[in-house]
Amino acid sequence: MVPYAKRMENMAFTANVVRGLFGSMIDPNVISFGGGSPAREALPVDTIRLLADEILQTDGRGVEALQYGPLIGVRDLREVVVRDLLAPKGIDCGVENVMIVAGGLEGINLTCQAYIDPGDVILLEAPTFVQSVEIFDLFQAKCVSVDMDDDGLLPEDLERKIRQFHPKMIYTNPTFQNPSGRTLSLERRKAVAELAAKYDVLVLEDDPYRDIRYSGEDLFPIKHFDATDHVVMAGSFSKIFSPGSRLGYVVADAETIGHLVDVKAATNSHTSMLPQILCAEFFKRGYYPAHHKMICDLYRKRRDVMLQSIDRYFPAGTKHSYPDGGLFTWVELPGGIDTTALLRESTADPAVGVAFVEGEGFFSDHDGRGKNCMRMSFGSTPEDLIEEGVRRLGGLICSKLGQ
Amino acid sequence: MVPYAKRMENMAFTANVVRGLFGSMIDPNVISFGGGSPAREALPVDTIRLLADEILQTDGRGVEALQYGPLIGVRDLREVVVRDLLAPKGIDCGVENVMIVAGGLEGINLTCQAYIDPGDVILLEAPTFVQSVEIFDLFQAKCVSVDMDDDGLLPEDLERKIRQFHPKMIYTNPTFQNPSGRTLSLERRKAVAELAAKYDVLVLEDDPYRDIRYSGEDLFPIKHFDATDHVVMAGSFSKIFSPGSRLGYVVADAETIGHLVDVKAATNSHTSMLPQILCAEFFKRGYYPAHHKMICDLYRKRRDVMLQSIDRYFPAGTKHSYPDGGLFTWVELPGGIDTTALLRESTADPAVGVAFVEGEGFFSDHDGRGKNCMRMSFGSTPEDLIEEGVRRLGGLICSKLGQ
Repeated sequence: MVPYAKRMENMAFTANVVRGLFGSMIDPNVISFGGGSPAREALPVDTIRLLADEILQTDGRGVEALQYGPLIGVRDLREVVVRDLLAPKGIDCGVENVMIVAGGLEGINLTCQAYIDPGDVILLEAPTFVQSVEIFDLFQAKCVSVDMDDDGLLPEDLERKIRQFHPKMIYTNPTFQNPSGRTLSLERRKAVAELAAKYDVLVLEDDPYRDIRYSGEDLFPIKHFDATDHVVMAGSFSKIFSPGSRLGYVVADAETIGHLVDVKAATNSHTSMLPQILCAEFFKRGYYPAHHKMICDLYRKRRDVMLQSIDRYFPAGTKHSYPDGGLFTWVELPGGIDTTALLRESTADPAVGVAFVEGEGFFSDHDGRGKNCMRMSFGSTPEDLIEEGVRRLGGLICSKLGQ
Repeated sequence: MVPYAKRMENMAFTANVVRGLFGSMIDPNVISFGGGSPAREALPVDTIRLLADEILQTDGRGVEALQYGPLIGVRDLREVVVRDLLAPKGIDCGVENVMIVAGGLEGINLTCQAYIDPGDVILLEAPTFVQSVEIFDLFQAKCVSVDMDDDGLLPEDLERKIRQFHPKMIYTNPTFQNPSGRTLSLERRKAVAELAAKYDVLVLEDDPYRDIRYSGEDLFPIKHFDATDHVVMAGSFSKIFSPGSRLGYVVADAETIGHLVDVKAATNSHTSMLPQILCAEFFKRGYYPAHHKMICDLYRKRRDVMLQSIDRYFPAGTKHSYPDGGLFTWVELPGGIDTTALLRESTADPAVGVAFVEGEGFFSDHDGRGKNCMRMSFGSTPEDLIEEGVRRLGGLICSKLGQ
């Protein structure tokens, strides 16, 4: 047998967790708070059908949609990113600073290809997004976690770890974080940018949820405070347009974009053309504002029902985050409940039949943290089923605590 | 400044060549024999429009097309690969042996992620496909070239190099090779599979052109002779359906597919859903056979015009390959003509205005081979422009030789 590359051993643990995440999306027999899928009601199927019908004409953009395209992405869509997604958030840049990639996650992979050598240290949040850790493991990076509180990464601990570990990169998911639902405060965003410049560390700002906010005030991204080209931002169309289209974007200085385009060429040449053109037209023709309001209203209701139901049905001593947007809340259970065992039981028992994601996999140190925690997604489940699922799961947890 | 990863230095040379390849596709002022794009007439725009209209209904597969999908790819499309593309070519496998990727090139990238450590030796053809070498450079492999003749790789030289360099992988593009248009003979395909088993070396069979044959007899792929799971095949829908859709597939034993799916999850989760479903329906509803005949007839005529024109207008002593399929012929010029200088002149001079790809970039050793060679693509240029472009280019070459 031809041996696998060494990096494959590194990622065996996280690969297993990620497979579980994708598997949990498609089991029809459980109420799933597991996957991170958008609601089916949030997918603009009818609009995309209209746009496809018009675009797919030989005299229209049909040939462009099916032929090879530019490595850096379709220009129209890069302009949409600059004008509709970055400028309103306080990021002033040009199309030369934006490339299109196949989902926000690909932006993380390409940034690692361009910057991470085996053994390089990446600082990240605890908990953090496990699929990103899978990527860091693939690149044989050494992940070191930084403490957080309800306002995100702690700058004091970040600076201490920078001094101690000399990292190549800081990875953060600052807005409505996956999995915790927490948001990095404005002062801390500024502090992260300043620390990156001071110590010459790259910041990978993974910000796919920023545009779906249901309460509170918009915050400038870390990239807004980046005066020294130390921040690469990975954005996504998965939550505001369609995840199956696999569309994301990277924002960086033009030199870095040039290198990322080379890496993209050596990964899959360029991103699929028809989805890019459909997405660009969706924005250019003005469908986005009404769609955006509709999905935020939808998710706000689901969030509220989930948080109220947890307060009502989960045992006393339960803590949960209050996400101002995004798709997740993070729950800490009292009484030494092990959520990995709980998940097995709650999915196997047909009287419960509820899935979530156990907390342990979101801690890159695998030091036992998160054992009593769970990520609960409210995105893809209707309100009545959210209440029903939380009620059943809460009943199971209370029964284990003898409550 | 945060330093780039070491692998970025490795790929600087090939990245430059690949950027040129993609750039050459979009200059409207020249007759281009440069890029490897299919003909616009070969893109099934109208059929895809009909299919999109039907699929993109909420009650139909519209939600599936826009939502997250399986990491391994859409099952319908994997079944199409097994039944319509592999079985007729003598590869007997199941859907568990097939995953969908974002273009044939991504199959090459993922295979390297799973198998190639820095310093591993990859044996490859001379000349070979430069964008694959860019990937091998990214993975810091050591590329060693194997001699070829008109029937492809020489098995004697291959065995000698296996013994000498102990490679991890043999990379071959056996059918209507990019850039040479040559096809590996049946006996040699069998020999390559046997050498791989004998010396425990992986074969990466990159076979994107196999299905567009215009003359001669179909040959079994190397994978057909693989009794020991030493062959990974990368296939593509770019030439038979649409390159902009970025759809390809990998064929391997189920264990290897499992690892490649993990790597895909850490690259971009999965391939874009709408293109996968459109492509699957295109085959399932029986559109492929007539489309296939149409594109083969189209390319056969273009090939014939290009070869006849080269024979007529290029100077005495010119050699070219006779491709039985694919999109390229490989031309060797007499009299010490340097094709890199020739390309500069032929694109800059408005009286010529013809592009091709200079030969040097296709030799991974950068040892000066290919200096008098050029890759000429007949795929995307109408017959009258092929003759006109070859006539003008031939005139320029003859004038340099004083003919």
